Amino acid sequence: MAAPRPRGAWSSSSAPPLPACFLPLLLLLASFSAAPTAAAARPSSTPKKPAAAFPAAVAPLHLQALKRHQRASSSIRAGGELFVAAAADGTANGTAAKKPFTVHYFAQELDHFTFTPNASMVFRQKYLLNDTFWRRPSAGDGDGAGPLFVYTGNEGDIEWFATNTGFMFDIAPKFGALLVFIEHRFYGESKPFGNDSYKSAETLGYLTSTQALADFAILIRSLKKNLSAEAAPVVVFGGSYGGMLASWFRLKYPHVTIGAVASSAPILQFDYITPWSSFYDGVSQDFKSESLNCFSVIKGTWDVLDERGSTDKGLLDLSKLFRACKTVKYAYSIRNWLWTAFSYTAMVDYPTPANFLENLPAYPVKEMCKIIDGFPTGADILEKAFAAASLYYNYTGDQTCNKIEDGDDPHGLDGWQWQACTEMIMPMTVSNESMFPPSSFSYDERSDECFQSWGVRPRPHWITTEYGGYKIDKVLKRFGSNIIFSNGMRDPWSRGGVLKNISSSIIALVTEKVICHGDQVLII
Amino acid sequence: MAAPRPRGAWSSSSAPPLPACFLPLLLLLASFSAAPTAAAARPSSTPKKPAAAFPAAVAPLHLQALKRHQRASSSIRAGGELFVAAAADGTANGTAAKKPFTVHYFAQELDHFTFTPNASMVFRQKYLLNDTFWRRPSAGDGDGAGPLFVYTGNEGDIEWFATNTGFMFDIAPKFGALLVFIEHRFYGESKPFGNDSYKSAETLGYLTSTQALADFAILIRSLKKNLSAEAAPVVVFGGSYGGMLASWFRLKYPHVTIGAVASSAPILQFDYITPWSSFYDGVSQDFKSESLNCFSVIKGTWDVLDERGSTDKGLLDLSKLFRACKTVKYAYSIRNWLWTAFSYTAMVDYPTPANFLENLPAYPVKEMCKIIDGFPTGADILEKAFAAASLYYNYTGDQTCNKIEDGDDPHGLDGWQWQACTEMIMPMTVSNESMFPPSSFSYDERSDECFQSWGVRPRPHWITTEYGGYKIDKVLKRFGSNIIFSNGMRDPWSRGGVLKNISSSIIALVTEKVICHGDQVLII
Repeated sequence: MAAPRPRGAWSSSSAPPLPACFLPLLLLLASFSAAPTAAAARPSSTPKKPAAAFPAAVAPLHLQALKRHQRASSSIRAGGELFVAAAADGTANGTAAKKPFTVHYFAQELDHFTFTPNASMVFRQKYLLNDTFWRRPSAGDGDGAGPLFVYTGNEGDIEWFATNTGFMFDIAPKFGALLVFIEHRFYGESKPFGNDSYKSAETLGYLTSTQALADFAILIRSLKKNLSAEAAPVVVFGGSYGGMLASWFRLKYPHVTIGAVASSAPILQFDYITPWSSFYDGVSQDFKSESLNCFSVIKGTWDVLDERGSTDKGLLDLSKLFRACKTVKYAYSIRNWLWTAFSYTAMVDYPTPANFLENLPAYPVKEMCKIIDGFPTGADILEKAFAAASLYYNYTGDQTCNKIEDGDDPHGLDGWQWQACTEMIMPMTVSNESMFPPSSFSYDERSDECFQSWGVRPRPHWITTEYGGYKIDKVLKRFGSNIIFSNGMRDPWSRGGVLKNISSSIIALVTEKVICHGDQVLII
Repeated sequence: MAAPRPRGAWSSSSAPPLPACFLPLLLLLASFSAAPTAAAARPSSTPKKPAAAFPAAVAPLHLQALKRHQRASSSIRAGGELFVAAAADGTANGTAAKKPFTVHYFAQELDHFTFTPNASMVFRQKYLLNDTFWRRPSAGDGDGAGPLFVYTGNEGDIEWFATNTGFMFDIAPKFGALLVFIEHRFYGESKPFGNDSYKSAETLGYLTSTQALADFAILIRSLKKNLSAEAAPVVVFGGSYGGMLASWFRLKYPHVTIGAVASSAPILQFDYITPWSSFYDGVSQDFKSESLNCFSVIKGTWDVLDERGSTDKGLLDLSKLFRACKTVKYAYSIRNWLWTAFSYTAMVDYPTPANFLENLPAYPVKEMCKIIDGFPTGADILEKAFAAASLYYNYTGDQTCNKIEDGDDPHGLDGWQWQACTEMIMPMTVSNESMFPPSSFSYDERSDECFQSWGVRPRPHWITTEYGGYKIDKVLKRFGSNIIFSNGMRDPWSRGGVLKNISSSIIALVTEKVICHGDQVLII
């Protein structure tokens, strides 16, 4: 089985032999598939996330910021390559790992679907290239180029995703592929209004999946032209929300990409397609499968926490117990802190040590349960929960205290809060069988919360209108081709994914089933 | 062969027997296909159309109008049925024909692809229903409903298109279909900003094909829900630009429609896919095929016209010769008037009398040439041209003079000028072999004209980026299904259409080839 690559170790010589069959490919896919999952489960997906996680009031309209940027960008024509930053040894996310790609910026238009005066504003969209393995087009005729493997970036810094993606690097040598990682608008360095980008609906309004897909199409087409590789096939890859984007991109832009590998892409988590309790049932099942005691301890935590956090004295005691950097004001802050630890750990329950969301050992759910089960029977239940959660937040032991109420955003994911208030309405409830406290979901409540926070109301049925989802097997059986949906079944998001083959070339790979279609599925 | 139906004559009893084979279906399709063609050839497609056809200066930004409408619409929630107007005997376009449909209005959102504050503004989108033939869903379970046949409205009043569409009515009884005609945003009564809709880019910016397709998807989904017919299949139909929309709708929204009948849809008329001279070569060929003398007379007209219109006295004489209501100021006004007559007549060269753009006899190109050929050899060439053009403008003989410089817009098509300056960039040239004066096309010139007229710059490669077109056979061979592209080969737009089968269910029907696939292609 292919182990996740250490950072900076991507080179042709270290790539494993390419799979002749999907058995090893499946394992590679599964390890890739699980990796970028977590980001999609931002707090917006967490029932009962306190409203305080959103800004307390509707932000003022930042028309000034928009105008300022319009002026600044007025001299830039859309569609051009802006400049190439220095390659290699860039430092992202506080790591010093060398990255085997060059950094580029593309002049992207703000709004592809209207021609209002703001629409033609241009912003810098970042993308990364690695041409180590690329079979360049023949001089003159431009034929014979190797494919472009394009990662359709999701809700974070693109270098973070590129750094945590091994599969594309693994298979690039065999296909002679150019690797491209495109940053999603409004994340990382690709913020159309710079630091003002997140301030209001006036600017954030342009953060949508449809605009992102059009960005990808325009950038890819321009890139191929600039490389004299217009005949080169393009395969898109993505995980989690990026996996949704990859599959939707194949469906909406078949003339730009010949196929998609969509890992852990919960495209069926919308509307009434997938049972609303499935995600947290999945998390709970992961813990239960390790230890019934572990599951029960976590399930028993919430009431005790609420009770002991109901007084100021209790909150002070809890702050000490949970090593809070500052005394917490609300018991639900601790609840969210624990909730995040358990649910995110289930999403990154990789079979090897990894450092995607946090630095974690192999099989972290099992390790958490070992910690809980290792306590004497009479020990304080909150001590157990705290110790387990500390595996997630402080596995390396270098945190002296926990930022429980003012967490930071090291991967630049906060735009997802907006997306979860506009398009990405994935209803989630917590059932009585879960280890989390039962919780319901209401479209109206979500709408009111979002209006209060951002001045925007969600369009809860838009995703299924724009991309489909209902009866997907029937719809896509005779329409579309070349999509691989891969899922690891311990990933709680997998329950909202495509888990059954739809046609001979729209296939589902799950870790329990080994399918040997041959890797020609990737390049047809 | 099915003759075009007289207005108001659609009833179940008058529908012809349904075709068992595509031979009669083809003829029906061909007559349908040619009908709505002309509108796509608005003056924007006419080379050397004088800039004066556009507003002389950039219109001021009508932010006030937008705000006013926002306030007016703030109490309307999107997605709802607004109201049903009185059915039957409505009068459209000055005709008194009874129309067998009910008129409805849907609360549509302004911008589906952003969440900016303006995006959620709601406007009234008009649509028509005819349920005469509809097999309603069984009470209770909603199953067993007949399909919805939906006309994806193009650049004009929807009643005009519905009135000129026979095919959907012809086949509705066999399929038990509900007929739906949806008006395109910014046309007819579906103007988001009322009378202010066309005043500037601030409002017109929302007139795009992508928004129109999303409108269709949202309206259809809502309609089916309201009718308890969610399981009913939907087939979309359209001609000309409406045909492009129908085929693109199947490609982009396969979960909303199971198939499309796209008649005379020049989806390959963009970028460098189809030779730029093809349209006017087609018009010229139509005339040449009737009479070489006719072709030569028209070809010889332009120089004579320019010469005689080069003085004020000459313009006065020409105004008399052409029975102008007002003395014309520029010779090119007459040139455009003739140009329009010849090119539009080629587009509506139906084998039966028809009244789509103008009231015309059967085979109007042949009739025009008969008029020209009937003159004595030494007659004034401009007299010949005038007499021929009068067939187009004044076949009924009730016009006492011609509005040469201030033509009206009876079908509400003017929004196409904006579309031709934004997305719908179909480069057209006139070759030396044409009967029109040679003319070139320049993207830069078009861009500058549009900027001067509307303050907007086209995105000339957007259509092929968003919808494809290059190597369409290769792209769609393994992707997509259930699209019929029908073309009459005398229609000059046919050269930009899909004229060869792409797969077993993406097929081309042309009048010269009779293909007998059986009508199950329509409902699979």
